[in-house]
Amino acid sequence: MNASNPFDLKHPEPKALASTIESLAARFGNRLVTSQAVRDQHAHTMTWLASQPPDAVVMAQETADIQDVVRICAANRVPVIAFGTGTSLEGQVNAPAGGICIDLRDMNRVLDVHVEDLDCVIQPGITRKTLNENLRDQGVFFPIDPGADASIGGMASTRASGTNAVRYGTMRDNILALKVVRGDGEIITTGTRAKKSSAGYDLTHLFVGAEGTLGIISELTIKLRGIPDTIAAAACSFATVEGACQATILAIQTGIPLARIELLNAAQVKACNAYSKLSLPETPLLLLEFHGNDVEVAEQTRRFGEIAQECGGGSFEWTTRPEDRTRLWQARHDAYWAVRGLRPGAGVVATDVCVPISRLADCVVETEADLLDLKLLSPIVGHVGDGNFHCSLLCDVNDPDEMARAEDFMHRLVERAQSMDGTCTGEHGIGQGKQKYLVGELGPEALDAMRALKQALDPQNIFNPGKIVPAA
Amino acid sequence: MNASNPFDLKHPEPKALASTIESLAARFGNRLVTSQAVRDQHAHTMTWLASQPPDAVVMAQETADIQDVVRICAANRVPVIAFGTGTSLEGQVNAPAGGICIDLRDMNRVLDVHVEDLDCVIQPGITRKTLNENLRDQGVFFPIDPGADASIGGMASTRASGTNAVRYGTMRDNILALKVVRGDGEIITTGTRAKKSSAGYDLTHLFVGAEGTLGIISELTIKLRGIPDTIAAAACSFATVEGACQATILAIQTGIPLARIELLNAAQVKACNAYSKLSLPETPLLLLEFHGNDVEVAEQTRRFGEIAQECGGGSFEWTTRPEDRTRLWQARHDAYWAVRGLRPGAGVVATDVCVPISRLADCVVETEADLLDLKLLSPIVGHVGDGNFHCSLLCDVNDPDEMARAEDFMHRLVERAQSMDGTCTGEHGIGQGKQKYLVGELGPEALDAMRALKQALDPQNIFNPGKIVPAA
Repeated sequence: MNASNPFDLKHPEPKALASTIESLAARFGNRLVTSQAVRDQHAHTMTWLASQPPDAVVMAQETADIQDVVRICAANRVPVIAFGTGTSLEGQVNAPAGGICIDLRDMNRVLDVHVEDLDCVIQPGITRKTLNENLRDQGVFFPIDPGADASIGGMASTRASGTNAVRYGTMRDNILALKVVRGDGEIITTGTRAKKSSAGYDLTHLFVGAEGTLGIISELTIKLRGIPDTIAAAACSFATVEGACQATILAIQTGIPLARIELLNAAQVKACNAYSKLSLPETPLLLLEFHGNDVEVAEQTRRFGEIAQECGGGSFEWTTRPEDRTRLWQARHDAYWAVRGLRPGAGVVATDVCVPISRLADCVVETEADLLDLKLLSPIVGHVGDGNFHCSLLCDVNDPDEMARAEDFMHRLVERAQSMDGTCTGEHGIGQGKQKYLVGELGPEALDAMRALKQALDPQNIFNPGKIVPAA
Repeated sequence: MNASNPFDLKHPEPKALASTIESLAARFGNRLVTSQAVRDQHAHTMTWLASQPPDAVVMAQETADIQDVVRICAANRVPVIAFGTGTSLEGQVNAPAGGICIDLRDMNRVLDVHVEDLDCVIQPGITRKTLNENLRDQGVFFPIDPGADASIGGMASTRASGTNAVRYGTMRDNILALKVVRGDGEIITTGTRAKKSSAGYDLTHLFVGAEGTLGIISELTIKLRGIPDTIAAAACSFATVEGACQATILAIQTGIPLARIELLNAAQVKACNAYSKLSLPETPLLLLEFHGNDVEVAEQTRRFGEIAQECGGGSFEWTTRPEDRTRLWQARHDAYWAVRGLRPGAGVVATDVCVPISRLADCVVETEADLLDLKLLSPIVGHVGDGNFHCSLLCDVNDPDEMARAEDFMHRLVERAQSMDGTCTGEHGIGQGKQKYLVGELGPEALDAMRALKQALDPQNIFNPGKIVPAA
């Protein structure tokens, strides 16, 4: 921690750290935890990145706890890392310079629900499933579903999205306002409950996706939707990835309000058949969901069926029966476990590129060819309506040759996406793993701007140092 | 211009200004204009704020022009103000410290259209009508309609929206990426054409709504939509504002994808009847538009009709015939002229608050009462789906007593909206006119953050000084 180069990653001085832990112990008692096991739990990353545990963990219960941790850490120039459920994928909760982890799981209350306004005010540690269980009786829901039962604060911080972003947008589109604890422990309010505003710089969306590097989110006001009367699920096989992508493009162009449209490549369908005991044709598959009332859903499915046929789709079946819907989508939800089943014991490395939808078929097909060339095993699932897809690389993490090929593959994948005017991360964030790709995507001027923003809002570099912005 | 307090508003030193104009003349020849008439045209504000012309105007034709103006101004610490069509409403194009205006009207080309991706790349000076004429043949359109035929760069800079934000969002929701000229003349690229990204701080949305205070937008990548097959227009009168608002709330809760839903209060309907020779009941009126195919539009109007009836609406008529649609909506489009007709020669002062939709009826009704109390004449129109409404105050700008009451009214209106968890500006921006309200809305910490961002990205305070962020 050196003010002259705030992006340096130095561990705090031992004295400063000891003083910090002493102050935290006095303030938090047994809510300060320094056991190795708990520290390790708070560094777990879901990928091949090495774990880097914090020096201690504080279990926060209210906003004042966050404020006090930040004040104590700031006084000693010790890093502070916010932790939700630890399901981020790019090392976002690692502590490369040590420091104090604030675990927000107990800050999980719904503070206010405004059904008429379709918004609610929540604490950051609530997970999306718990939130939606809380809301169900009131006929509303929070639509973002990244797969994991992540905390909403964490989802905001990584600008997460998932399977139904095609209809409901990403976390960026679903946050009205935040409260954020800044470096001196005071709280920045970024917006109001008004649905739109032109009142100054968009602080809300600066903190969304900032991965806790500019302050710690202590409260969120988020948008809700009415639970649709009717939900239909459908599946349609295609001979080629191109056909599936073309159907998706036409559906979006003609304004069908698809709620979900997921692509599984042939390798992924094969894995799902094996794991979920299905007998789907082992060719590219689209899994879809439609939301509306009976009339609307019937019209949406009719229109999509026509488009699928035009694009060489196989039989298009849809159902509104909950048990049938569950059966269809369960395979998608279990895709991760199906992948693991292909090579038990192997590590899974998730990738996350996103390209303009017109380039998606090219990008997937070239990526499949590259996997073959490099002798790597990786099914592909895609949020095809957004042009976002994930390879799940199955690697023997102890085989240096295979890991080298995997790294080579990941570099080439990112470069391929970027050359198609796409991004190195659609929804997982930069964290530690993607820092090297930012400059290739946006250029040095954007990096300069990001560094300037970080220095402006966190001049001591105490908030989650070593994430997003690479050292100059 | 004083580095120690970058928010001070000092005119440049005469020598520095002379040197700037000399350099610009050498570079731009007769595209540098210093005539009083042209300077005055570039300071016109649409409101009661006094005009503050720039010292000179440069007619930019390409990005390199913007870069060179910025470089020359930066070297001399002279302000630079971007100008689109001058239709902003809060003094955004005024030059309180003088400086150089860059007129972008000739940078009006469509650089690339990607119909499959529903995006296009444009120069900042193109207006929304010209853009949509360019796009029509390709079956796509840009949906944001703030009323004025504003430039897209200007609309981005004020985070504009308008009548169909309820369905298509605001400028914030419809920009994928920007190129922005920074203080040293280099260009920041803020994003790619991917529909979503988690790649670092959201620079795009920091520049959207920044009113040219952080850099000058030289290129935009924006989202398009397919032109709907069927467009229906409808009108429905209500006995009370509450009834109209309740119908709107229910329609949104149940997921009817309203394309436009505009509230006209009784005073506005009366003005429209007189101006547009209509005979609408002189009670609160909702004007609506529905987009979809035939089946969808029929279902949407059926559902809205039921809701309107439940909420005490009068007869609900809808039509898809273009001439009937035009007749209905013409009254809304002419609302401004209808207002002017109520008191020829008076000035019109536009207000722009936005509240959670559950509070909209209260806010409008209390505002109507306040107008009565203060003996002020002001019809009201509202983008009721967003909770955003505008009073059009008709004032004799030469009557100090009336202007004092008008100012009093505006303060009370903003405070009323803010006390209802709303904002002082839904879509017009802060400019000069709303600076005093920011701290009441977001608190001093948010202002600190905004000041820090301004200093980080524009340390010389050359970009549109005196806007958004009040001096500390």
